[in-house]
Amino acid sequence: MNMYSLIEKKRDGEALTEEEIHFVVSGYTNGDIPDYQVSALLMAIYFQGMTEKELSNLTMAMVHSGDTIDLSKIEGIKVDKHSTGGVGDTTTLILAPLVASAGVPLAKMSGRGLGHTGGTIDKLESVPGFHVELSTEEFVELVNKNKVAVIGQSGNITPADKKLYSLRDVTATVNAIPLIASSIMSKKIAAGSDAIVLDVKTGAGAFMKELDDARALAKSMVKIGNQLNRNTKAVISDMSQPLGFAIGNALEVKEAIDTLKGAGPKDLTELCLVLGSQMLVAAKRTDTLDEARQILSDNLKNGKAISVFETFLKSQGGDSSVVHNSDLLPKAALQVDLPSKSSGYVSKITANELGTAAMMLGAGRQTKESEIDLAVGLVLNKKVGDFVEKGETLLTIHSNSEDLDAIKENIYQSIKVDENKVEPPKLIYELIDG
Amino acid sequence: MNMYSLIEKKRDGEALTEEEIHFVVSGYTNGDIPDYQVSALLMAIYFQGMTEKELSNLTMAMVHSGDTIDLSKIEGIKVDKHSTGGVGDTTTLILAPLVASAGVPLAKMSGRGLGHTGGTIDKLESVPGFHVELSTEEFVELVNKNKVAVIGQSGNITPADKKLYSLRDVTATVNAIPLIASSIMSKKIAAGSDAIVLDVKTGAGAFMKELDDARALAKSMVKIGNQLNRNTKAVISDMSQPLGFAIGNALEVKEAIDTLKGAGPKDLTELCLVLGSQMLVAAKRTDTLDEARQILSDNLKNGKAISVFETFLKSQGGDSSVVHNSDLLPKAALQVDLPSKSSGYVSKITANELGTAAMMLGAGRQTKESEIDLAVGLVLNKKVGDFVEKGETLLTIHSNSEDLDAIKENIYQSIKVDENKVEPPKLIYELIDG
Repeated sequence: MNMYSLIEKKRDGEALTEEEIHFVVSGYTNGDIPDYQVSALLMAIYFQGMTEKELSNLTMAMVHSGDTIDLSKIEGIKVDKHSTGGVGDTTTLILAPLVASAGVPLAKMSGRGLGHTGGTIDKLESVPGFHVELSTEEFVELVNKNKVAVIGQSGNITPADKKLYSLRDVTATVNAIPLIASSIMSKKIAAGSDAIVLDVKTGAGAFMKELDDARALAKSMVKIGNQLNRNTKAVISDMSQPLGFAIGNALEVKEAIDTLKGAGPKDLTELCLVLGSQMLVAAKRTDTLDEARQILSDNLKNGKAISVFETFLKSQGGDSSVVHNSDLLPKAALQVDLPSKSSGYVSKITANELGTAAMMLGAGRQTKESEIDLAVGLVLNKKVGDFVEKGETLLTIHSNSEDLDAIKENIYQSIKVDENKVEPPKLIYELIDG
Repeated sequence: MNMYSLIEKKRDGEALTEEEIHFVVSGYTNGDIPDYQVSALLMAIYFQGMTEKELSNLTMAMVHSGDTIDLSKIEGIKVDKHSTGGVGDTTTLILAPLVASAGVPLAKMSGRGLGHTGGTIDKLESVPGFHVELSTEEFVELVNKNKVAVIGQSGNITPADKKLYSLRDVTATVNAIPLIASSIMSKKIAAGSDAIVLDVKTGAGAFMKELDDARALAKSMVKIGNQLNRNTKAVISDMSQPLGFAIGNALEVKEAIDTLKGAGPKDLTELCLVLGSQMLVAAKRTDTLDEARQILSDNLKNGKAISVFETFLKSQGGDSSVVHNSDLLPKAALQVDLPSKSSGYVSKITANELGTAAMMLGAGRQTKESEIDLAVGLVLNKKVGDFVEKGETLLTIHSNSEDLDAIKENIYQSIKVDENKVEPPKLIYELIDG
């Protein structure tokens, strides 16, 4: 077998065999196959796509390139959730305790990553004392006891994916759906859960700006998961405007607490109920989405969800009294209200631009070395479709710096107010069930 | 300007500007742009093609990456000829003196190269004493005096093309017509002639096996040449069976001498008249192909063509008496006739397979380091369409080794004899005039 003939085969639209895919992935990971041959293959895949069989073989080849997490000592069907990423996406903080409150185990491995705000772990570290440095034994024990725990990414998970991603990133081959799908799914499968629910975002603040692309990605990932015997479902949800009101680490934790108490923003609460219901069905906790939704909805109202969150924080060293007193979370020195310049209906809040503003405040990492300011961020007072009076607050900037002129200007650019009535955007586009 | 966005642009089917193409070619040549980005771009070009403007810009960027030959001190319109390569292709040896005999200057820079037999220079070196190590001054002086001279490739001609070709060769992007066309044309333009005639081969022994591909390549090269103010024409000719009878270095020189005396194989003579006529018209020596053909045809019969060849050999140190006595050329120890196993019509002589047999005998280089045996090769006694009696000679093997069993077997495999009458293949498919 030689790399040249495999590039040629894919270039000519033929499918690569399991053996051939394994040859490429292991050869590239161990340095036997040079970058320039792999980038040519990636570009050929960009144009020719991959069959379902190729996709699941590529996914498993990347899984087997490194360590996998063994969750077999956790009782029950473990469910995992993945979001393709958006702005103000607080769902994981809410879903983990919410789904656990229904008795479904959630053993979450999470990263820090780059982006508008920190990753799930950064957000949780807003809670004084909270930590994710657990041994595998402690982690398994906590999930068995509380049905939920979060551990930091450790070990050498899917090194092939990391290496391929770095190459795609400099060769304009990131945006190929088969490659995105197999990359995400390899990490999910290496992380060990039995069932997977994917939240595929679409709109200006999402990686997939177009609904068609989001749908293709969702379908591709659901097929990979089900081919590999992981019960996998996907939800396509809106990311044209930010989700909920808060964008920032501690600010999103506060919002998660509100939501877990049944007093969260409408869109965020709804998305959590939709995703959570899929998770319960995927984990065979209920037969129907309706039953699942009823349980989750009840648990937001009856205190069970917030109580699981409290226990979860405490079990990982966190000061769980934040649940009752959000003043214990990091707080920015300045709260600056941004007034609307005119009266009318909010017609646009461009998610990615607000995300960039939050990052400029210090809420997210631009490079791996950047330090995050957990306190800063933005809290919307209005969402698309809301009426706003001239002078009324559009959003509040939480900042530790007084130098806000550029940020204010950017925010004004990204929020549009229209005289005519505007309908809020659809939140859930589609459920994809494999 | 950055390479990432250029890959993306081409991937999405947009045309690169002159400036952008120059950025890529110079950046790659000087090592600023890594292989893996260029191979991704090459694969994107494979799928998206290039516009005429892009092609001429790419060609000129490669020309300017290195030295160019200044032929301005040669009087008249200098014409060059290029063949995309075949088996037993003796045309350059014949065309150079033939076209010169009509008063059109031919300043030929030639290489050695890899292949079934040696390059034009290797073949000419079968003539005792002949050499191509000329200074530019001597070269120019000889062309002005004799209308023809051959010089070895010297200087740093199109280094960008060399580097790109090496990368294409390992990334399955050799077979992209825009890349082949610009690669060939960059070398021709750097070599300094004013007019160019291209012999694009098609069939089993050619790089372009299919007529459609040969036509696309021919059209692409003619467009590049004419865009860049080189009067460029192309002929598409057959390479399903070898051209002429001889495959081998000294053997082809002998065949060239026969042809220049008007006693050459019919197909080889015809192709030389067709290409030569194009060259005369391209160089504005005659207005019509018919006039040109008449002059060339006359010169094969009246001794002018062979006399120019004699002078040419002598002027570059060669023993010109080979023209009268071919026994002075290198001769193999063994001449082994291969008899036909049945009676019938020759229906197939697969050119590339006979070429490989000649290379196995030592007539061509497999690697740059291989030494060529100028004496060895094959001489056909029959061509497609000819009748052969059982036991009659199909071809003669000229060898310096007695170990011929494998080669004989290969040759028998590549020649088919059929009971039914077979028409000889078409020799000239198309003339492409830009």
